[in-house]
Amino acid sequence: MTTLPPATSRIASYVVEAAPGSLPDDVRREALRSFFNILGCTVGGSRHPAVEITEKAVLPFAGAAQATLIGRGKRSDLLTACLINTLSSSVNTYDDTHAEAIVHPGGPVMATVLAIAERQRVSGRDLLHAFALGVEMECRLSMAVSVAPAKAKIAWSQTGITSGIGAAIAAGKLLGLETSTLQTAIGIAASQAAGIRAMHGTICTAMMPAHGGQVGLRAAFLAEAGVTSKETSIEAKYGFAECFAEAPHLSHLVDGLGERFEIRRNTYKPYPCGIVIHPLIDACLQLKAEHTFDSREIEQVRIKANPTALALCDRRHPKDEFEGQVSLHHWVAAALTRGKADVPEGTDASIQVPDIAALRDRVAPVADPAIPPDGTDVTLVLRDGRTFEIRVRNCIGSKDRPMTDRELERKFEGLAEEILSRERTRALMDTCWRLEALADASDLIRATSPA
Amino acid sequence: MTTLPPATSRIASYVVEAAPGSLPDDVRREALRSFFNILGCTVGGSRHPAVEITEKAVLPFAGAAQATLIGRGKRSDLLTACLINTLSSSVNTYDDTHAEAIVHPGGPVMATVLAIAERQRVSGRDLLHAFALGVEMECRLSMAVSVAPAKAKIAWSQTGITSGIGAAIAAGKLLGLETSTLQTAIGIAASQAAGIRAMHGTICTAMMPAHGGQVGLRAAFLAEAGVTSKETSIEAKYGFAECFAEAPHLSHLVDGLGERFEIRRNTYKPYPCGIVIHPLIDACLQLKAEHTFDSREIEQVRIKANPTALALCDRRHPKDEFEGQVSLHHWVAAALTRGKADVPEGTDASIQVPDIAALRDRVAPVADPAIPPDGTDVTLVLRDGRTFEIRVRNCIGSKDRPMTDRELERKFEGLAEEILSRERTRALMDTCWRLEALADASDLIRATSPA
Repeated sequence: MTTLPPATSRIASYVVEAAPGSLPDDVRREALRSFFNILGCTVGGSRHPAVEITEKAVLPFAGAAQATLIGRGKRSDLLTACLINTLSSSVNTYDDTHAEAIVHPGGPVMATVLAIAERQRVSGRDLLHAFALGVEMECRLSMAVSVAPAKAKIAWSQTGITSGIGAAIAAGKLLGLETSTLQTAIGIAASQAAGIRAMHGTICTAMMPAHGGQVGLRAAFLAEAGVTSKETSIEAKYGFAECFAEAPHLSHLVDGLGERFEIRRNTYKPYPCGIVIHPLIDACLQLKAEHTFDSREIEQVRIKANPTALALCDRRHPKDEFEGQVSLHHWVAAALTRGKADVPEGTDASIQVPDIAALRDRVAPVADPAIPPDGTDVTLVLRDGRTFEIRVRNCIGSKDRPMTDRELERKFEGLAEEILSRERTRALMDTCWRLEALADASDLIRATSPA
Repeated sequence: MTTLPPATSRIASYVVEAAPGSLPDDVRREALRSFFNILGCTVGGSRHPAVEITEKAVLPFAGAAQATLIGRGKRSDLLTACLINTLSSSVNTYDDTHAEAIVHPGGPVMATVLAIAERQRVSGRDLLHAFALGVEMECRLSMAVSVAPAKAKIAWSQTGITSGIGAAIAAGKLLGLETSTLQTAIGIAASQAAGIRAMHGTICTAMMPAHGGQVGLRAAFLAEAGVTSKETSIEAKYGFAECFAEAPHLSHLVDGLGERFEIRRNTYKPYPCGIVIHPLIDACLQLKAEHTFDSREIEQVRIKANPTALALCDRRHPKDEFEGQVSLHHWVAAALTRGKADVPEGTDASIQVPDIAALRDRVAPVADPAIPPDGTDVTLVLRDGRTFEIRVRNCIGSKDRPMTDRELERKFEGLAEEILSRERTRALMDTCWRLEALADASDLIRATSPA
């Protein structure tokens, strides 16, 4: 391992010195869209059985009622709230994605800044700024250990291993930590960075960012209190980069701070499942809209997909909704059967629907390196001999075909109206779009209340 | 990555089915010695400033008074108590070591089983058995990812990455989890497994096992409540072994369960510092005892050491006691100056003593692969021309020269009498030796009370 350039001190100084006004308008706007998207996901996931189970397990050990468990009508201590709120944000696999970094950055950072905003008065502008910085550093750090010329094992959950540091940075910014203390917080979070991709298809898929958020928030408090760690934790000998990368490239982390913004490339999921499945769903929904057929008439669904789609989501027989979230076979079958691909199509009940289960057996995917990650070629062969073909590039929600604000609102409504009334959902969305004008960001948290 | 053999289910079934009576007598005895040693370390570390700082940071978020913060006259929730008690156990770097696995297994597992014993009635026999199983699996797991033919980056903290799974296993045993639920608990802990060796020399050295213990205890509760994870987390594609090993060798984990016991090779530190420094201290203490000289008369201390000693503890200028814990230069200088190598020789104050600091500059270590890990050759050159040589093999506390029960008692007394009275220390040691006869293991916890 050759010596790596300074990195931890550079990002810490940048974060400490950054002022909300220094962010370009389009970056602030994308940060707001990221925040809006993940808040909707959080409200929408808040009554999920996995959240119930987790709450039941951890509340017996939780502390005072300091912070809101969003959508649940309860309060708990800041660290527990951070865990539960991040879990809600990611439990439907409906969150945000930086495609190149393979990171879902928003949830852990959002839950962290909201926790701080219930501890001390934080303006909406400062809250959004800290959120943007945390997301930015999480994406950059992930790129530094995984994007060429860097190289990492695909086995790591990039969200898992980077979310704690992103959360620590956002928390540290709002706590006003000095540069060296923020470096220490990053180090504590680095020493607790964790996540393995084998967990995909289980509740731990969502628990990993939840744990990351909690670890990062706690790291900021530990550093503030005086716990020491390596101040060069990312680039140090035996440090984060050496551990998590086969070959790190720290330029991805430190170059162009304040000029290049990775949050510009953050994207929002139109469908609640692994992002590599999305172009396939686009194709199937278009086929369903353009042609008339019953899914039982389908002989075969031939799919050419980017190899990553098969590496991550080749699961023909998902046993429950968590395996379904990472089963391309399921979502192809569900989209061709229902003509929709929303939260109801991903539930345990939908996994068990006989027509959908039967069609999963007739999905025939092949990996083709010529297909881009946001594309697919699909050929539908019906039993009566009809054949329909479709080619998708730049699927909805991808970098080159981002979800519009109106599409984000429809997604938010679809999620939140299951939990809040239509009126309260509208009010919450309006408050969220006005976040930067709020003198006290906790007004936004209060607006998530169902009652 | 070739397909790995089943491992998670094998260790889970073994643990679920194991009965206390099935452990050979010498294994139970070594488990008790391990427990005795780490309990003494915990009492002795309980007032350390790093514990104070950590408690200050986390208590504002902690829950009800369910469990004892050993030596601190306070109670907190089970998860917080597990964190703090493990931290106390390891903060003086005085804990136990499985040398080949490079693991300090006892602290996280001890804190976990004690937490469970404050939640439900647990007999001393069951407590010690669960402790033995957790320690055993932690050592075996570490070997499976790091001992030849397995191969791992030295950058991982083996204690950090394996302590959560060891703790989850011990907790799961006492909670009576079924095999599949225990597999799930192991998976949750695997998804949160963390630790990087760059933290050595900081409070995070002790925080990593503390975090691991807490993660493992919580994993058992999460699995019990129904949180799902991969049931084959250790051997799965994209799983623990693939992530943490360059080349895993799961036979080290699963072969000879119930016959080969790694806890037989657990050792206890006679000096509160990195174990690779211990043969050097033995040598220096012997030189000091056998010859008459003032440390200011020393021209040079020439040391031949096993290469690992330099890889891990080559720190000529420690800035505080945590860097001192992993500075061979410091301990050589302190032992030659004071003729002792106990907790007082490692404090911040001792780090600053001018004679010791000056002598550190005259320590000249070289790595020599011919020197075994538990040995050293030291040549002392005095300014007056005298030269003393010494050769140490099988240093005190190593596998081939284990600390005797009486030596463990003297260590315990030295640690605990700073916190408890001499009488209470004696009573606590006696209760601990009688652990297997206790109908309720919480009697032992009560015996740790200073008042």
